[in-house]
Amino acid sequence: MSGEAEGPGSGEDRLIARHFRPLARHPAAFGLADDAAAFPPPAGCDLVLKTDPIIAGVHFLADESGDAVARKALRVNLSDLAAKGAQPAGFLLALALPGDIGEAWLTAFAAALGEDAEAFGCPLLGGDTDRTPGPLTVSITAFGTLPHGTMVRRNGARPGDRVVVTGTIGDAALGLRLRRDPGLAARWTLDPTMAAHLVARYRIPQPRNAVAELVRRHASGAMDISDGFAGDLAKLTRASGVRAEIDLRRLPLSPGARAALAAEPGLLATIVGGGDDYEILCTLAPAEVAAFSTAAAAADVLVTEVGVIAAGDGPPSYSGDNGRLQELERPSYSHF
Amino acid sequence: MSGEAEGPGSGEDRLIARHFRPLARHPAAFGLADDAAAFPPPAGCDLVLKTDPIIAGVHFLADESGDAVARKALRVNLSDLAAKGAQPAGFLLALALPGDIGEAWLTAFAAALGEDAEAFGCPLLGGDTDRTPGPLTVSITAFGTLPHGTMVRRNGARPGDRVVVTGTIGDAALGLRLRRDPGLAARWTLDPTMAAHLVARYRIPQPRNAVAELVRRHASGAMDISDGFAGDLAKLTRASGVRAEIDLRRLPLSPGARAALAAEPGLLATIVGGGDDYEILCTLAPAEVAAFSTAAAAADVLVTEVGVIAAGDGPPSYSGDNGRLQELERPSYSHF
Repeated sequence: MSGEAEGPGSGEDRLIARHFRPLARHPAAFGLADDAAAFPPPAGCDLVLKTDPIIAGVHFLADESGDAVARKALRVNLSDLAAKGAQPAGFLLALALPGDIGEAWLTAFAAALGEDAEAFGCPLLGGDTDRTPGPLTVSITAFGTLPHGTMVRRNGARPGDRVVVTGTIGDAALGLRLRRDPGLAARWTLDPTMAAHLVARYRIPQPRNAVAELVRRHASGAMDISDGFAGDLAKLTRASGVRAEIDLRRLPLSPGARAALAAEPGLLATIVGGGDDYEILCTLAPAEVAAFSTAAAAADVLVTEVGVIAAGDGPPSYSGDNGRLQELERPSYSHF
Repeated sequence: MSGEAEGPGSGEDRLIARHFRPLARHPAAFGLADDAAAFPPPAGCDLVLKTDPIIAGVHFLADESGDAVARKALRVNLSDLAAKGAQPAGFLLALALPGDIGEAWLTAFAAALGEDAEAFGCPLLGGDTDRTPGPLTVSITAFGTLPHGTMVRRNGARPGDRVVVTGTIGDAALGLRLRRDPGLAARWTLDPTMAAHLVARYRIPQPRNAVAELVRRHASGAMDISDGFAGDLAKLTRASGVRAEIDLRRLPLSPGARAALAAEPGLLATIVGGGDDYEILCTLAPAEVAAFSTAAAAADVLVTEVGVIAAGDGPPSYSGDNGRLQELERPSYSHF
């Protein structure tokens, strides 16, 4: 992404200058006036690198606002940095815009992106804009820093570790269904606040960067929950060569999710198998749980112990649901 | 991009495991088995970061082979690193695949990507794959390293500097026209070798990473030529607050471009204004030209002095074309 400071320039230059230069105040970005960013990494740190694009009609609804798209595009990447224990350092933005995206949408997009970049300490450093004949696609590559060799891996869970999640599980999957069919709110006995909360959880994730350093200090294994709790847990335990035993009665549910589940018990599969939670799933040695939980609470992040890691291979086992969940080996979302 | 080493996993996991894990041998990639890469930057270096996606029907023809798409996707980013004086360090790949992309295409894509990653010393470190209802989109974020504070900027050209380009100019723009209308080869009096060369220059750029270190040591200003020589030169001189005086008789042309231009003099505007050259445009203090040229020749890269930087603002001026080029202020390609 490079846009000229003034002068004639192209339409792309003007678009970048108008909407994105105001976000690019970090010196590494050169005001988006050059061809690349030059970032000086802190001594002794690894760069944690992640790219997770979002596509209209795939990762967000095609009529979504510029504000929500911007926040989701950045936050799905921030969520990965948090789960790996990294502090955000910056991001690159590649924007593929269909012809029907206009100035008002872009203005809202850039304003929200700037707010989130500021709030999460993750400045825009560069990028690219193109027109596309296809759907709106926002490709963000985020990078973070942490002390060399300390990225929290998927493969570190050990028998005896506790399984812990941040926030509440299943809200976004329910929110997506509500967004598509608002009539479900009545069937699920949701009051308007509950319904709005679930939809908001789908539209705009709340990445847990506030506890990234705690994850790095205390967790044996971690990943963010983007493709569903059950599926992502299965990935973590497979990578670690262990099993997990989960007590579903301990799964943290928001009031809306709890009400919906009471009205329609079959929603348990949606709650544990649906995607877009963007919470952190991590494993902790028993001696680490208290310190982690106390510090997370001080950072205003709910953490809940939902199970334990056991020796041996195999899919996670679930108790506390009266046998309702039988097929949780591969319920997570996959594009293929 | 993360794919599980074995076990059930999702279709996405299997796709990644089959096609992309073999490319991810750098330790920072964790074999694509985690959620992010962790790259240890060399001490005292800046990370030069660039993202430049390519979209079917926009940046390459929709029927292009997996081999050519892979190479172009990586090389357009490598070209930026080269022009900024950086050594490639690695890249992330975000792949948005339409439903009609099958195994054979992906196999060719991954094989070529692996070859180029090896040849240019730029390993795959991570990424993401999605299905898209839109056109095939390959979003690569490449990063390179160079000593802190030494990235070659657009804004460093000074009066008296010489304007130098690598390789030959205009081939790709002619090649694109030939690819769309093979009948032009006869009109342009091209023999088959010439025509094939021009088309190849469009399909698969030849980034000049072999001279990146020379650019860093010798150039006052630089950028890669992606949107056309004339337009990119205008960007460089505007950023530097200077003018350029170009002698078009010195512009390095391939035999095919020379033949086409002789047959159809109006093609000069295509040659200097068309895009996709992926050559380096740089400015050098007069005392640096000889050392730069000699070392570039030793690295087997043609470099040609095409003009001089003058004091004052304004668009580049062109001589040696008998007044054919009148409107070169904004001939470069813009998506907007």
